[in-house]
Amino acid sequence: MSDVKKVVLAYSGGLDTSVIVKWLQETYNCEVVTFTADIGQGEEVEPARAKAQALGVKEIYIEDLREEFVRDYVYPMFRANTIYEGEYLLGTSIARPLIARRLIEIANQTGADAISHGATGKGNDQVRFELGAYALKPGVKVIAPWREWDLNSREKLMAYCAENDIPVDFNKKKKSPYSMDANLLHISYEGGILEDPWAEAEEDMWRWSVSPEAAPDTPTYVELTFAKGDIVAIDGTPMRPHEVLERLNTLGGDNGIGRLDIVENRYVGMKSRGCYETPGGSIMLRAHRAIESITLDREEAHLKDELMPKYAEVIYNGYWWSPERRMLQAAIDETQHNVSGVVRMKLYKGNAIVVGRKSEQSLFDESIATFEDDAGAYDQKDAEGFIKLNALRLRIAAGKGRKQD
Amino acid sequence: MSDVKKVVLAYSGGLDTSVIVKWLQETYNCEVVTFTADIGQGEEVEPARAKAQALGVKEIYIEDLREEFVRDYVYPMFRANTIYEGEYLLGTSIARPLIARRLIEIANQTGADAISHGATGKGNDQVRFELGAYALKPGVKVIAPWREWDLNSREKLMAYCAENDIPVDFNKKKKSPYSMDANLLHISYEGGILEDPWAEAEEDMWRWSVSPEAAPDTPTYVELTFAKGDIVAIDGTPMRPHEVLERLNTLGGDNGIGRLDIVENRYVGMKSRGCYETPGGSIMLRAHRAIESITLDREEAHLKDELMPKYAEVIYNGYWWSPERRMLQAAIDETQHNVSGVVRMKLYKGNAIVVGRKSEQSLFDESIATFEDDAGAYDQKDAEGFIKLNALRLRIAAGKGRKQD
Amino acid sequence: MSDVKKVVLAYSGGLDTSVIVKWLQETYNCEVVTFTADIGQGEEVEPARAKAQALGVKEIYIEDLREEFVRDYVYPMFRANTIYEGEYLLGTSIARPLIARRLIEIANQTGADAISHGATGKGNDQVRFELGAYALKPGVKVIAPWREWDLNSREKLMAYCAENDIPVDFNKKKKSPYSMDANLLHISYEGGILEDPWAEAEEDMWRWSVSPEAAPDTPTYVELTFAKGDIVAIDGTPMRPHEVLERLNTLGGDNGIGRLDIVENRYVGMKSRGCYETPGGSIMLRAHRAIESITLDREEAHLKDELMPKYAEVIYNGYWWSPERRMLQAAIDETQHNVSGVVRMKLYKGNAIVVGRKSEQSLFDESIATFEDDAGAYDQKDAEGFIKLNALRLRIAAGKGRKQD
Amino acid sequence: MSDVKKVVLAYSGGLDTSVIVKWLQETYNCEVVTFTADIGQGEEVEPARAKAQALGVKEIYIEDLREEFVRDYVYPMFRANTIYEGEYLLGTSIARPLIARRLIEIANQTGADAISHGATGKGNDQVRFELGAYALKPGVKVIAPWREWDLNSREKLMAYCAENDIPVDFNKKKKSPYSMDANLLHISYEGGILEDPWAEAEEDMWRWSVSPEAAPDTPTYVELTFAKGDIVAIDGTPMRPHEVLERLNTLGGDNGIGRLDIVENRYVGMKSRGCYETPGGSIMLRAHRAIESITLDREEAHLKDELMPKYAEVIYNGYWWSPERRMLQAAIDETQHNVSGVVRMKLYKGNAIVVGRKSEQSLFDESIATFEDDAGAYDQKDAEGFIKLNALRLRIAAGKGRKQD
Repeated sequence: MSDVKKVVLAYSGGLDTSVIVKWLQETYNCEVVTFTADIGQGEEVEPARAKAQALGVKEIYIEDLREEFVRDYVYPMFRANTIYEGEYLLGTSIARPLIARRLIEIANQTGADAISHGATGKGNDQVRFELGAYALKPGVKVIAPWREWDLNSREKLMAYCAENDIPVDFNKKKKSPYSMDANLLHISYEGGILEDPWAEAEEDMWRWSVSPEAAPDTPTYVELTFAKGDIVAIDGTPMRPHEVLERLNTLGGDNGIGRLDIVENRYVGMKSRGCYETPGGSIMLRAHRAIESITLDREEAHLKDELMPKYAEVIYNGYWWSPERRMLQAAIDETQHNVSGVVRMKLYKGNAIVVGRKSEQSLFDESIATFEDDAGAYDQKDAEGFIKLNALRLRIAAGKGRKQD
Repeated sequence: MSDVKKVVLAYSGGLDTSVIVKWLQETYNCEVVTFTADIGQGEEVEPARAKAQALGVKEIYIEDLREEFVRDYVYPMFRANTIYEGEYLLGTSIARPLIARRLIEIANQTGADAISHGATGKGNDQVRFELGAYALKPGVKVIAPWREWDLNSREKLMAYCAENDIPVDFNKKKKSPYSMDANLLHISYEGGILEDPWAEAEEDMWRWSVSPEAAPDTPTYVELTFAKGDIVAIDGTPMRPHEVLERLNTLGGDNGIGRLDIVENRYVGMKSRGCYETPGGSIMLRAHRAIESITLDREEAHLKDELMPKYAEVIYNGYWWSPERRMLQAAIDETQHNVSGVVRMKLYKGNAIVVGRKSEQSLFDESIATFEDDAGAYDQKDAEGFIKLNALRLRIAAGKGRKQD
Repeated sequence: MSDVKKVVLAYSGGLDTSVIVKWLQETYNCEVVTFTADIGQGEEVEPARAKAQALGVKEIYIEDLREEFVRDYVYPMFRANTIYEGEYLLGTSIARPLIARRLIEIANQTGADAISHGATGKGNDQVRFELGAYALKPGVKVIAPWREWDLNSREKLMAYCAENDIPVDFNKKKKSPYSMDANLLHISYEGGILEDPWAEAEEDMWRWSVSPEAAPDTPTYVELTFAKGDIVAIDGTPMRPHEVLERLNTLGGDNGIGRLDIVENRYVGMKSRGCYETPGGSIMLRAHRAIESITLDREEAHLKDELMPKYAEVIYNGYWWSPERRMLQAAIDETQHNVSGVVRMKLYKGNAIVVGRKSEQSLFDESIATFEDDAGAYDQKDAEGFIKLNALRLRIAAGKGRKQD
Repeated sequence: MSDVKKVVLAYSGGLDTSVIVKWLQETYNCEVVTFTADIGQGEEVEPARAKAQALGVKEIYIEDLREEFVRDYVYPMFRANTIYEGEYLLGTSIARPLIARRLIEIANQTGADAISHGATGKGNDQVRFELGAYALKPGVKVIAPWREWDLNSREKLMAYCAENDIPVDFNKKKKSPYSMDANLLHISYEGGILEDPWAEAEEDMWRWSVSPEAAPDTPTYVELTFAKGDIVAIDGTPMRPHEVLERLNTLGGDNGIGRLDIVENRYVGMKSRGCYETPGGSIMLRAHRAIESITLDREEAHLKDELMPKYAEVIYNGYWWSPERRMLQAAIDETQHNVSGVVRMKLYKGNAIVVGRKSEQSLFDESIATFEDDAGAYDQKDAEGFIKLNALRLRIAAGKGRKQD
């Protein structure tokens, strides 16, 4: 274990990763570089500096990655209307590739030969961090303390803190019964009573949204402007990507939108219960489908829907930095050139309802679709030949006595 | 046109199909058999008898197909979590194969050589009726009056009624500005102001549900029992399939659940705006995903998700009676043997929220998933090898200098 | 029918399209522009000029499109290893989009308001020509004489020629019993005794290749150099795309390679028997797979294979000029950046055998794959964790008593 | 390691697995049960009995599984026209699930708590054996000596034999430079000079087939009778499944058919070069496609082609005993009810050429497909409407100015 000289750690500033700093220093007798990013998790990142310094860290990276996160990861993912297993908007999954990339870039800058993270050995995040790291720097050493050490209970961790003078008030807030993760796209909850899939989540667990019951009694209307598949303005005001998501989080959270309670299949082979709040993302998803509904061709829309589950799986499993993700992204992005226009939504007590959509690139043709006289835009007699030839193979089969049920 | 001797007509008892009775009799100089089915559209079907008799029809079929409709069409479709274009629950599409089948069976029973329907030449329903008919009776003649006649305005229709003594009060209700279709699964609205996709639907259009605003201020909880993928009991009370859907429609409609407003891509090549109310179906879909979340294996769940858009397209386009639908159904049904258990839902002002799920067939293993000590059920060290080998191809590529972004 | 002023006809110079020239002039009282292209069909195109002039045509387009055909249509298609229904290399399908595009461009240049072609109403080619035309010029009028006129027998055609002074020796060769189509990629045969799928094709039908029996007794070796998915040199000699295919056709044809005898499913709903000779294409396909085998990542290779049948169907059905084809092409082309290197093949009596492949972009890593000592490049112990976690879901299911067969 | 009481070993009777017997006895101090199966590898299995006895084994299972292998594994796989990565017929992959199942059944019969195999830690076979074992007996212990011991060179193995009195003449034949595996479906070669993908395989490597050059100068014709997707007779003689494959191996091998030389992507993340001889399988694949070409509906055929790569991957990766394989199999088998009839093939110097196909379930309709007068079976005018409506979405898009290239 003595061959690691310097390791870059994804450092939150919390108790667990502070323990990891110390443990890495002792176990590997190596220098630790900390990397702390603001990706919209809702906590100050600057305090991590003093904590890292107190632990003897000399190279400290603290960065605001909110815009990059939304622009280069969240937005491309939403172009595909991505949902994992019919429900989950991939809030945790999509943040990992960015962290992995910065860890490796900092390793390259600081001459580190290893990276480390605080994810456990049971979850998906270890996979996502490490696949990203290996894809970007194939010879990197990855240290996953939770898979190596024996501090596998709260008591042992506390004892380690006492022995090593790690101030336990690092963990200022009352310890939540849940394991949580947050970024601009969502906050997640696992563990505690959620480990019983029959138990309803408690109201005081949720942090980002009011309950539908507590939401205002009057709806909020909002207009979202899309350009090439991405939201670029809200109610006519141009915004940068992370500003869009922050604003939608506020609007959604205020209206009780975006709560989710599911059992999902982890890549490592087990099922797990998770609760998520994705207020802005939930609005964005429906709005994106709505603007696509008038601007996408039918067949490309259907093909996107067929590819989406695969694309979601690729991201969920941690393969953002892979040729298959790039291949799928190329197909998805090819379809978004004309996905521009405005969607009008009504937000009310948990509901994000599309009430209007318009676009200069609209393929909706009122003159053809109308129930009124279409002045010859569509010849109904064409339908007969269309049906006849589409039916031909079925008729031949039936004529040969093939069973039809 | 004189070669048709007897035609079976899908007869609603309304003005349009009454005109068709007369028009068929005159144009083809043939006998007309009427077929009227109760598939839960919410209107009495028995009055159609007198109307048909008044038009000189001798063979009149009036049937209650509600149970068959839900059991053999709606339920199999929901096993696949079927959604068309990310939003539409296929309420109209799924009723057509049943009507087509009965039209053909009655044609065979009555010795008719043709069938007829009242669908227009612009829509999907003509395709669905006719593909079904041709698949089940390849030599049948199909008569689609809306594609043939010149009664293509309300004025001409009325004039025809006057000339032919068709009582216009057949159409008792005030003429709705919308084209509507209803069955146990949903009611749909098209036309009128909906032809402008930017215009919000008016509140008084909706017939089956209260608005979320008007729904009760306290939630309703309900427990749905599944057996092999289908709901068989509500709150512990066993019910037949159509009773389940009727009950869920009531529960959903009372709580403002199941409204949808979309622009969809028709098989005949145009986009159209539609509004739908699917109260029970919207509950059923989420509940089915929830019971699957604990009883389905991950890979079969993902494969179902990949096949679903194709399956939805097959049904939407009218190919229920096709080998490809049977092939997909075989795959889907193979996965449902263990999809049994109970889902608990909270219904509140437009929200159908899963709050609990349990099953004797559950694959959720708390002893493995737990954040607490798992007593060796899962060896975290296995994760290292898992990640290393999954990363191998990416590392080799990176080692050869392949770009990763 | 009098509203057509000028029509551009895909003119082969043969009897049938010569009749069409006259028929269009008479039926539509319009001016006819002829367009004749050399796409490698193996017949001189220049003689079409005099024939068209003799028919009174004033605007005559004769073009050599061989390079464009291979570069912009054949090559992109082969990047996907495209095969329709497991066998057919799409030789006819891929030529149609180019013809459609030129017909429309010439219509735009000459101010024509219509295009016309000599394809029958039963085949796929009418669909391919017309979908392309409509996609490129939505308001164009398409005239398909074979669907309109009554010259539906050889006798009637001959009578028409006699009446209209069309020299029958236009058709110089002895009339073949087969309907044939040729371009640089292939020659096809339909009709005649092939209409019985049990009947073996006669040896004297085949025109482009010797039989395996008649091929040389010694093999020919050839080295094909790929750059980004396309062949750019043969045996070290750089060549332009059409030169590559011409050379491979010679090599393949001489060695009895590329004959195919199948029953295929037409888009218009029927099955048809076709025989094809695709000498160069058959070599190219195997070579492309071989170079991909060492340069493509596994997951992108597998995803390509999953998308290929859809891509083949899109092309076969005539949707080259569609958003779904562009979307698929974007995904395919994204994978080809590193598909460069050399494939060595042995050609012998019908066999095109890959015997070697090498590339500077190769992902084959001998140091890892070796059965000998790999000096630690691969840690076999990683395999245990890899298998254990991949098995976890199966073990949980089995532990719960799920049946496994 | 002392907790293993009895282990069932997949025992070939060769040197390596004989060493494993001894190593297991010593390392785990446990009883070893040997299992040796005839799956058509072409070597006697009975001699394994004496060898096992000499090693002190008391429970010895020697079984002829040839019929079961072909009937329950090879045939179901061929119903899907299964090919991995465009080339490989999965000869090794498909034998593993059967071995895994018997190992577990014997473990259950003999009260063994572990199984063992001789596959290395770099290959796919360890994964296939172990995934199968875990799926069928979730608590089983798997011992993979090649991942555990230090006998990782030929010298160490020989030293171990000397120390433990294992007669080295167990390995009677001259040691081949290749790693080989054989069963009724194929024989494979890896290693040696094949580790250079540019090197051509040597002629004397191949064991099951003559070279095309050495094959007879006159072709062999054969007629294969299919029933529900499987071959049941050759040249009119009914045969059991393994007899069919044995006969086709002889016919193919005699005519130089079925050699393959590829680089493939292993599940464990590396590329490897392999050569394969699959004489009977190569004939069977083309014949099955041919009988499907006249008996399958177009859309089910296309859907099969889209699912095939996934199905091949599932088998290649070792997931035969998985819900996703059963799901895919259900879809595939659903399509085979009518895949019956006769295919006539010509075998000649490496070529397996389909020359005729017929079936009472044929969907080929000569009266419709004919180039001659079809007496109204097909109305060419239907094609116009078919094309027009299929083009509608493209025309609308073009009309709105969307780019088409």
